Amino acid sequence: MTTHTIPHWLDKRAHLTPDKVAVYFKDQAVTFQQLQRQSFIFAQQLSTIGIQQGHHVAVYAHNSLDLVRLIHALSYIGAVGVFLNTRLTRDEISFQIKDAKCSYILYEQSSQEFLGSIEEEGSLAGYAMSTIHSLEETPFNRVEEINLSHLHSILYTSGTTGNPKGVMLSYGNHWWSAVSSALNLGLSEEDEWLASLPLFHVGGMSILFKSVIYGMPVHLYESFDPEHVHEAIMEKGVTMVSVVSVMLNKLLQLLPPSEGYPQAFRCMLLGGGPAPKPLLEEAHAKNVPVIQTFGMTETASQIVTLSAADALHKLGSAGKPLFPAQIKIEDNNQKQPPNEVGEIVVKGPMVTEGYFERPEANEKSITTDGWLYTGDLGYVDEEGFVYVVDRRKDLIISGGENIYPAEIEGALQGHKDIIEAGVVGKLDERWGQVPVAFIVAEEDYLSIDDIQVYLQDKLAKYKIPKHFYFVKALPRTASNKVKRRVLADWLKKKEES
Amino acid sequence: MTTHTIPHWLDKRAHLTPDKVAVYFKDQAVTFQQLQRQSFIFAQQLSTIGIQQGHHVAVYAHNSLDLVRLIHALSYIGAVGVFLNTRLTRDEISFQIKDAKCSYILYEQSSQEFLGSIEEEGSLAGYAMSTIHSLEETPFNRVEEINLSHLHSILYTSGTTGNPKGVMLSYGNHWWSAVSSALNLGLSEEDEWLASLPLFHVGGMSILFKSVIYGMPVHLYESFDPEHVHEAIMEKGVTMVSVVSVMLNKLLQLLPPSEGYPQAFRCMLLGGGPAPKPLLEEAHAKNVPVIQTFGMTETASQIVTLSAADALHKLGSAGKPLFPAQIKIEDNNQKQPPNEVGEIVVKGPMVTEGYFERPEANEKSITTDGWLYTGDLGYVDEEGFVYVVDRRKDLIISGGENIYPAEIEGALQGHKDIIEAGVVGKLDERWGQVPVAFIVAEEDYLSIDDIQVYLQDKLAKYKIPKHFYFVKALPRTASNKVKRRVLADWLKKKEES
Repeated sequence: MTTHTIPHWLDKRAHLTPDKVAVYFKDQAVTFQQLQRQSFIFAQQLSTIGIQQGHHVAVYAHNSLDLVRLIHALSYIGAVGVFLNTRLTRDEISFQIKDAKCSYILYEQSSQEFLGSIEEEGSLAGYAMSTIHSLEETPFNRVEEINLSHLHSILYTSGTTGNPKGVMLSYGNHWWSAVSSALNLGLSEEDEWLASLPLFHVGGMSILFKSVIYGMPVHLYESFDPEHVHEAIMEKGVTMVSVVSVMLNKLLQLLPPSEGYPQAFRCMLLGGGPAPKPLLEEAHAKNVPVIQTFGMTETASQIVTLSAADALHKLGSAGKPLFPAQIKIEDNNQKQPPNEVGEIVVKGPMVTEGYFERPEANEKSITTDGWLYTGDLGYVDEEGFVYVVDRRKDLIISGGENIYPAEIEGALQGHKDIIEAGVVGKLDERWGQVPVAFIVAEEDYLSIDDIQVYLQDKLAKYKIPKHFYFVKALPRTASNKVKRRVLADWLKKKEES
Repeated sequence: MTTHTIPHWLDKRAHLTPDKVAVYFKDQAVTFQQLQRQSFIFAQQLSTIGIQQGHHVAVYAHNSLDLVRLIHALSYIGAVGVFLNTRLTRDEISFQIKDAKCSYILYEQSSQEFLGSIEEEGSLAGYAMSTIHSLEETPFNRVEEINLSHLHSILYTSGTTGNPKGVMLSYGNHWWSAVSSALNLGLSEEDEWLASLPLFHVGGMSILFKSVIYGMPVHLYESFDPEHVHEAIMEKGVTMVSVVSVMLNKLLQLLPPSEGYPQAFRCMLLGGGPAPKPLLEEAHAKNVPVIQTFGMTETASQIVTLSAADALHKLGSAGKPLFPAQIKIEDNNQKQPPNEVGEIVVKGPMVTEGYFERPEANEKSITTDGWLYTGDLGYVDEEGFVYVVDRRKDLIISGGENIYPAEIEGALQGHKDIIEAGVVGKLDERWGQVPVAFIVAEEDYLSIDDIQVYLQDKLAKYKIPKHFYFVKALPRTASNKVKRRVLADWLKKKEES
């Protein structure tokens, strides 16, 4: 088979519908033709600072028009974007930049101080995006055809053990994700998609590729502000919004029971973690077309989605795998019958080829014929609808962000006075879950304040435990693993007392 | 890059929307689940007669539910369908079957007599489809995952020289064609597509894959009957129809100026040859949403299509290349500037990998990086809209069927009393064009009747010239090629006189 190429997607889109709006951001509206020109000029300026095809370029930025341009500019050069979570600490960022072998880091002017002298470590060159815009343009070998097997981006995700890993996403992964979603949700000339999820997460970024491939305007927001999103749905022609549970909850609070969203609004795509049933019921009662979905960075966003037609009678299900995708439930390498819980295993052309330079993790989680072991638990009913029972073993999801206990425990155990630590999630009305820690300390004088100060540089704020409990010893299995289920029971008792 | 696989598309569709209607045919409605079961049973019966993965299976059938099931049944086995034009003569069929290395031919009971003892030639096994349904079912190695690089079908097309050639179409070609069309036309849950074009042509067959991939009902008709199609649009919920000019013309005659099609009707997809401008203008005046398209067997149907948004202000254009497709205009291997006529050269994942066992033709018409030289002439305007000026050199299009003068000339020159023959197209009010022949005969006593009788077995009826002119010699170039333009001039003079 010839490896498939397609024309550069932004060139193509600018050719097909030049005057259609690509992105609304604040009070600006940028057409596809404008976006194409601006992104290409940006690419020429990136060429001036030496960025070339194949370079790995770290990007540290909040949602902005410039970030959208940058994402496309890198693709004109054929450089790979490593998109960093802006909530991370300097130490976490430093790890990811090294791990991904980045030769450049591009950031917002305002983050310069925070990032400090990060570029002095090794051979990293750092530039504020705004300074690049004042540079001259240097011609380069422009990517005219996208080879779908080429690497587009690396997005970091933590795992059940060890350090975060860089998920390699190809152009083909993003392409198939966009196409698969359209085959499920349909495609209308009237569609406009609101993105308030950060673009550095795949759930946000995927909306950009949908925009270009479908020819659809994106309403981009710097962050999630319930009032703004509500207003955009009610008055600005937005027909689709991507949300996580905590956002949906806030939006529903702004919608009086008597009032509904406009008829053209057709999809509240709900991902990023399990959805509480009362929330889904409230949405249903208010006639909000919530469409549940299951996905992860490794699947370039959605891979299982409930269709609109099934949304009501399968409340709570994440739906069926998208057209080109497959799913199976396994327990100890045995395929499970319907309704039996096991590990969710997925396959499809939107699934990553693997983690960047992690041969062991790849061998462990992806089979040679393309099945990815997600670590998430779920079952499939007789009709083939997928129910996610529990996210990745012990995963804590807080406001849509994934938090792995192992990472927090690792950070805690780095403290000289901490012997061992166990972390679990605690239910939280606002965030869904928050992390809490059980600690066995070396010395009695260790205070919670000490620990918090210590963690400050090491963990993003949302990962820092909200409560600390000092205990004499942690419950462990025969193989010396922390029994997190027992910790969860302890937590329950503490709350009841 | 991993070669992409997707779940078998009919299994997947039956899983996603089991109870949705897949095909309406006469007074029957078959759901996707029913179609899946019936096709699979059919496959087990085909297994009984020995059809296996990789076999080439000739299929001679008019549009029917059974043909739809057969197309899917072959894909469950992984056998390749060679779909024969039912208008061909026994000799033409015989050629294609041998050329495509078919080991089986399946046909309608009613064609048994016409096809006669065709299976006695060589090692061909022939079966009427109806007799297969009474056979037992034999288990076989079912295709559960479709490898998009695998060969799905071979469809014959004639060329400017020599015998018809088998265009190899992979699953991927059909997949990308369906997806590309959706990205252009949009995708609505309400869509229902009418297919009265024969399924053995790619324009008809592609509707079946759209049906399965989109989850969309097809209204299948045995043949084009203007009254039936009109009624289906007016009363049966049909929203899209594929037509050629001659069909559109008849449909417009049935539509009173005061009356329009229902609002839900959104696309009259017009392909299969150049469209006369008055016809387009009449359609426009009657508010019929005609969407012009350019494609060929080699591109698995459409590759250039006018979007609905551009349909009005670019009347007469075939539109822009579909999202994953590219086009360029060349003259003597030089890329032409806008508005300059040259050969249309196309590229994209829906384009065939080549003609079956025709290395020379493949080398001549397809470059190693996937550009196909169509032989058709056209230009691209400043905005990138494609205008097809003339179909493949000397191609005659009659009622949507392609007729190559070379093939008719070859047949004529096989007659012992014909020294040479030249064929050109003549404008025809009903069919668009019809073929006419200029003949240099050996003997004076050769009559037109003689020639017609002689051609009867050799050429499909639509290919037999409608007029014969005896001449003393044919105009030829220095390299001895017939100057068909001069013949066209002679024809004009004959008509004027």
